Amino acid sequence: MSTTSTVISPADLLQQWQGHRNLTCRVIDAFPEDKLFNYSIGGMRPFSQLAIEMLGMGVPSLNGVITKTWQKFEDIEITKKENQPTTKEALLAAWDKTTEEINALWPKIDVSRFQDVELAFGMWEGPVYWLIFYNIDNEIHHRAQGYVYLRSLGIEPPPFWER
Amino acid sequence: MSTTSTVISPADLLQQWQGHRNLTCRVIDAFPEDKLFNYSIGGMRPFSQLAIEMLGMGVPSLNGVITKTWQKFEDIEITKKENQPTTKEALLAAWDKTTEEINALWPKIDVSRFQDVELAFGMWEGPVYWLIFYNIDNEIHHRAQGYVYLRSLGIEPPPFWER
Repeated sequence: MSTTSTVISPADLLQQWQGHRNLTCRVIDAFPEDKLFNYSIGGMRPFSQLAIEMLGMGVPSLNGVITKTWQKFEDIEITKKENQPTTKEALLAAWDKTTEEINALWPKIDVSRFQDVELAFGMWEGPVYWLIFYNIDNEIHHRAQGYVYLRSLGIEPPPFWER
Repeated sequence: MSTTSTVISPADLLQQWQGHRNLTCRVIDAFPEDKLFNYSIGGMRPFSQLAIEMLGMGVPSLNGVITKTWQKFEDIEITKKENQPTTKEALLAAWDKTTEEINALWPKIDVSRFQDVELAFGMWEGPVYWLIFYNIDNEIHHRAQGYVYLRSLGIEPPPFWER
């Protein structure tokens, strides 16, 4: 396939995702330890819980795409309270671990898979590209909640365009 | 090009964008008139200003990609205060107009253009796909600010996954 006949290559889509994940990592780090786990606005979840949701989606999504076998969402380890990071350091370590796992799994997705329809986690049906986009979009969405939390705490978040 | 050798087609990328724009439209509509123009958290902009930023980027981005001639950002009509909608009705009308304009312009972007590097608005250099993604990502990011504004006002926003 010529590089001039494609909207975005798998490698560039990975770079988009990891660029956003890099920014989210810096947003986690911008929170004071206690606010990361306790602070919220309007009854929404603290930013740590939003980050844990992202961690619960990324690698399990890729594993499902690659193996065509889907865990139930509630069976994913990090969705269980006893497995969740309770310090900023542990959350950032889990983030870095996921970064490496995504990089290792990504090349196992053949380009022919992106248009295949999957029933992700036995619940959400759509093409593989849509599932990857959903991971990225959901992260941007929830990360922006973190931006508002930080601003309301008087903390300057990292610039959105720096990935 | 076979549909099985591409991550996402131009038509599907348009659908992603317009799906997000449809959701943003409903977020605008969920605001009470006065809060749309006056309410914010942590010194950030009211949601109307964020929506106007999105309107200032979309069609001018596509025009730049298609004509390879870029306006200066400050020359875009809607970035000028006197041209900005001051009611919810006018903002929603401007949104709908942009929806139609994007749909009309999109087919003029040949698939071969998405990998071309452009200096968007004379300021931001990157491939065309990256510029389109930036439009979408920036919209998700700022729309999520609107979600927090709404929640803090006790208003339930439309579900994120409904496009």
